[in-house]
Amino acid sequence: MSSSARHSLWDELGALVGERGVVSSEDASSRSCDPFRTVPAHATALVRPASTEELSAVVALCAARGQSIVTHGGRTGVSGGAYVDAEDVIISLERMNRVEEICAVSQLAVVEAGVTVEALQSAAAAQGLFFPIDLGSKGTATIGGAIATNAGGNRVLRWGMTRQNVLGIEAVLADGTIVSAMNRLVKNNTGYDLKHVLIGSEGTLGIVTKAVVRLVPAPSSQMAAFVSVRSHERLLALLARARQLPTLSAFEVMWPDYYDIVSTRDSARRPVPTGQGAYVLIEAMGYDTELDGLAFERFLQDLSDADVVADAVVGGSNKQIADLWRVRESADLLVSELWPFVSFDVSIDVRVVDTFIERSRALLIERFGAVRTATFGHLGDNNIHIAAHVGADTLAVEQEVERCVYQAVLEYRGAITAEHGIGQAKRAFLPEHKHSGEMAMMRRLRDALDHEKILNRNVMF
Amino acid sequence: MSSSARHSLWDELGALVGERGVVSSEDASSRSCDPFRTVPAHATALVRPASTEELSAVVALCAARGQSIVTHGGRTGVSGGAYVDAEDVIISLERMNRVEEICAVSQLAVVEAGVTVEALQSAAAAQGLFFPIDLGSKGTATIGGAIATNAGGNRVLRWGMTRQNVLGIEAVLADGTIVSAMNRLVKNNTGYDLKHVLIGSEGTLGIVTKAVVRLVPAPSSQMAAFVSVRSHERLLALLARARQLPTLSAFEVMWPDYYDIVSTRDSARRPVPTGQGAYVLIEAMGYDTELDGLAFERFLQDLSDADVVADAVVGGSNKQIADLWRVRESADLLVSELWPFVSFDVSIDVRVVDTFIERSRALLIERFGAVRTATFGHLGDNNIHIAAHVGADTLAVEQEVERCVYQAVLEYRGAITAEHGIGQAKRAFLPEHKHSGEMAMMRRLRDALDHEKILNRNVMF
Repeated sequence: MSSSARHSLWDELGALVGERGVVSSEDASSRSCDPFRTVPAHATALVRPASTEELSAVVALCAARGQSIVTHGGRTGVSGGAYVDAEDVIISLERMNRVEEICAVSQLAVVEAGVTVEALQSAAAAQGLFFPIDLGSKGTATIGGAIATNAGGNRVLRWGMTRQNVLGIEAVLADGTIVSAMNRLVKNNTGYDLKHVLIGSEGTLGIVTKAVVRLVPAPSSQMAAFVSVRSHERLLALLARARQLPTLSAFEVMWPDYYDIVSTRDSARRPVPTGQGAYVLIEAMGYDTELDGLAFERFLQDLSDADVVADAVVGGSNKQIADLWRVRESADLLVSELWPFVSFDVSIDVRVVDTFIERSRALLIERFGAVRTATFGHLGDNNIHIAAHVGADTLAVEQEVERCVYQAVLEYRGAITAEHGIGQAKRAFLPEHKHSGEMAMMRRLRDALDHEKILNRNVMF
Repeated sequence: MSSSARHSLWDELGALVGERGVVSSEDASSRSCDPFRTVPAHATALVRPASTEELSAVVALCAARGQSIVTHGGRTGVSGGAYVDAEDVIISLERMNRVEEICAVSQLAVVEAGVTVEALQSAAAAQGLFFPIDLGSKGTATIGGAIATNAGGNRVLRWGMTRQNVLGIEAVLADGTIVSAMNRLVKNNTGYDLKHVLIGSEGTLGIVTKAVVRLVPAPSSQMAAFVSVRSHERLLALLARARQLPTLSAFEVMWPDYYDIVSTRDSARRPVPTGQGAYVLIEAMGYDTELDGLAFERFLQDLSDADVVADAVVGGSNKQIADLWRVRESADLLVSELWPFVSFDVSIDVRVVDTFIERSRALLIERFGAVRTATFGHLGDNNIHIAAHVGADTLAVEQEVERCVYQAVLEYRGAITAEHGIGQAKRAFLPEHKHSGEMAMMRRLRDALDHEKILNRNVMF
């Protein structure tokens, strides 16, 4: 873009959103588009609308000029969805950060897209309510970003992904049209449920500006146990029994490659002895400390009676429960032990997860001679994460590592992304992992809502 | 259509689906498009493909000729979604009725669209699993129809609508394109989640041919109580406390206009005395008879201690629980007492449900001088049903009655249909109950996938 064209755009944007609403491309560059690497936000301009109407006007202006837009929430996504080109205009929702309403009776919140997940959790907690989506990046990640990417987290098997926790949505389409679908009702079959078209579309079909989210009563009881099992069969038996706990809130599996690293480097993170086939953190949350505790004890007793678990430790206090969670959340130790590594976020049928892991490793060894991995995840909802270290750290190596693991994903009918999304990072792999009819339908939908590909044009496909 | 054109179409369809696959328009007329009235299926032809490929070929043929299609599942919908014109071709999924797989480990079923809800329930039960969508019409309603209309039922507050119980879908678009999105994973963010575009679109965006549905372990405990409360405030207090039961599976409210009719006409359906503000059937289901029973007793004790309920009866046996459900399922008595009546299926914020009911009645009385109503519903998920009798039974009167109640729905920001859908019956009311941006986005989506409006062209909008 020429300097004069840039200045004219700048002036017009300023007229729409005011001085506070525009950030120069120099100042924008101090922001990173990636939470783990420094990827400066080099763009034509960064606009920060203060309202849906302002945002609509900005998008309409960009659409009229064929100006591409990249939308920024908290920039905590790990699939490159926030990466920008120099020609792009960035729209940040950071000034639209009000919690408009928390209703304890109807159990919902009305929030602007720029509210952080943590701010929403706190506002809900202040009224005895609970927003079940929980992410490591919750202090920075926004609810708009969580909706755009259909964020997951640890408690999906109880309360679902972000999708299941959104009742209503307001969004701005690529031509500036405001779509207000701020439904507050659990059951509503009045026409197409448009929020489901927008959720998880990674900002390619519209920009989420506001949402009605579902809240649940804040749990008053929390139980946790850390157990080990000898084999894959026993892991499945454990999962089957755990699914009969209506209070089950997490089922986090760690395989030996993960647990050996963590428990060796920090003996405080070795709740049970090593040498088993898998390690599981099981958490339950409810509303009756006594009876929920009894049910959890009985669950553990059943497992012991049926010889399902090898060793087990129960978290008897909040502190102990936090310590058990710290075993599962040992990214720090993985970094110091395995870096550089390629991270995976795949979903696999629980029946074949063991052979899938073997097959992935075999393909990596075949290609690279050796590999070190750490494997863990939220198995109850099919999601496993793998950190794979093969030595060198170049883009070419990274793509080769991905190709090996995604080959195994294809063979086992899994998903190349469970919760992180496609973004720009996995875009090249998408077509071979979606049915041709799906790709055709996706193109038709995007074309219908954003014919000029104004929004996040390098994202997803 | 001329007789020769009809014969040529007939021959071509026959060539695609074989003799068993085509039904003459005379034979089709013996079927009704409505479960409660006789509305003969007068159409050009009825086609019954035996496979997705046959169906795809039929749709492609129709698309090439600009031939309109109406899709038939079990024809149990009450919003006129299955009504046909003489010029239409009916596609029935009745021959695609195989349960292809039930997997107890992965907790899912793979079914063709023509499988009935009851057949799926039975196949799941045979493996210790449970399909939570339960409908009065389950013996006839098909899973394809349930998906197309996002069917609800009594247990939505625990397990969600049909939408929440579908993992994957296969469908044929209006040009014959097969979209296979037969996902089996709980967490999968690989591109747009196209099933959510198709679910609840009432057959206007594609024809569902197959699905992967989520199953849950079959509950082994069932508790139920029938209670009365004095006031709306106490009803809300009861709901708030019930939401802390992780085993809660139904919260069915009956208002005095309903309960007085039912309990007066059949004393066996009077578990508690009349004279209160509302009556509630509360059901819980779990996996531990002893502890679940204790939690349910404690719940009832809490209500009694806090003076929330006026009277309460507990179902102590399966027979007694069935008897309590019979009070809630007294459509037979409503018909004999109130017929003719107009039925409503609306959703309303629980905070204002009492004033909404009053306002609806006031508008009906203002318009008709008098009205008799029976009000009941699944309040936990906002859904209430009203049967309204004003005397005469003509189409004009019916529309006037609807206009009154939908006026109140508008004032209270409710939904004109919670679970029954728009179909042809509520089509005229849709635009004033959807935001203009929503209508615009709906039109763009439909236009993108079915430009010629081949599929269910008179449905929804």
